[in-house]
Amino acid sequence: MREVFQQELREVQGRLVEIAGLVADSMTRATTAFNESDIALAEQVIAGDAVVDAAAKTLDELAIDILARQQPVARDLRIVVSALRISASLERMGDMTGHIAQLARYRFPDKVVPKTLRPTFREMGQLDVEIARKLVELLETQDIAIAEEIRDLDDRIDALHLSVFDKVLGETWKGAAVDTVDATLASRYHERFADHAVSIAKKVAYLSTGEWVPSES
Amino acid sequence: MREVFQQELREVQGRLVEIAGLVADSMTRATTAFNESDIALAEQVIAGDAVVDAAAKTLDELAIDILARQQPVARDLRIVVSALRISASLERMGDMTGHIAQLARYRFPDKVVPKTLRPTFREMGQLDVEIARKLVELLETQDIAIAEEIRDLDDRIDALHLSVFDKVLGETWKGAAVDTVDATLASRYHERFADHAVSIAKKVAYLSTGEWVPSES
Repeated sequence: MREVFQQELREVQGRLVEIAGLVADSMTRATTAFNESDIALAEQVIAGDAVVDAAAKTLDELAIDILARQQPVARDLRIVVSALRISASLERMGDMTGHIAQLARYRFPDKVVPKTLRPTFREMGQLDVEIARKLVELLETQDIAIAEEIRDLDDRIDALHLSVFDKVLGETWKGAAVDTVDATLASRYHERFADHAVSIAKKVAYLSTGEWVPSES
Repeated sequence: MREVFQQELREVQGRLVEIAGLVADSMTRATTAFNESDIALAEQVIAGDAVVDAAAKTLDELAIDILARQQPVARDLRIVVSALRISASLERMGDMTGHIAQLARYRFPDKVVPKTLRPTFREMGQLDVEIARKLVELLETQDIAIAEEIRDLDDRIDALHLSVFDKVLGETWKGAAVDTVDATLASRYHERFADHAVSIAKKVAYLSTGEWVPSES
């Protein structure tokens, strides 16, 4: 029984890695769609979100099935509950990639943000892609040193998020209201994406250290 | 055993109702703080979010403890898993009230949004408070007619959310960039608050009808 359970946990883990991979690919495409105003890519991201949702749902069903059949307790139980939470966070990360792609679609053929902000969003996008790739690695290896790296990347994204507001609210900002709205939303989506990654990293760190982390954030 | 389990489920339900009550109170205060620029109230909301977080954490621990001791299967298992998800959504709703209060604090002693938008935000705030009160009632009574009412309220909030963008992007908008940023964020927070309520309502509806709803949204 124990061995079956361990195998099922590996199955859960494999699926989490797979969903994280889908999310990382989606963020890669979303940032390109956003930065290059690539409408075809934006459409791909928006359509692809259903795949992430379906994969998360399948994983949830598997986890609940394991709870029912294996009746795990103590640490094993928390691992399965954590998997459900990680799945919910990955699903939200997928939503954020869809939101970013949608901004690109709304403004097409224009670019979403004016020139002065493009380097900032390019960097935020790269960092979000990097954080998503690190997340895949973390879920695969459970190496908690990677959780630290994710937190560091998130700090850099937070700093860029604040710098967007500094720019938009600064005296040199010449953007129209639509640019201000788009920059505000885009920055928030990029920042939330990274927040969810940190939230997952904390849960994985718990699985290694035994230190339990409450539901969200 | 079955009777103990039923009693524990009632305990879980009671705590969900309690947390939803905290969130409803917090939203009531947050909207007043936001609309009236009441800094003391804003501080209360921001400080109070830790109470919601702690209550959600306690509930999660209880739910996990029930899973470990009672080893529920089938529908009983899904009820407990749903409680964990509802707790996570309530915790996020609490975060939104904190974000709304923070906008009031940032702009104090000024009001957060210019005159032309105040009636819209007043209405959004009232609807969010109403949705939160309905949620308490739904969790208490499990009357799925209330879930429908929550969805209807959410539709009205979504329409107001779109109308904020219409105003901000319209030709008559005279707001500075800071007003545009604040209106964008405030509208998003109000809308997300309602989204989480709908997500919870779907889960409660499942508990009555047996129709399972995937992790988020």
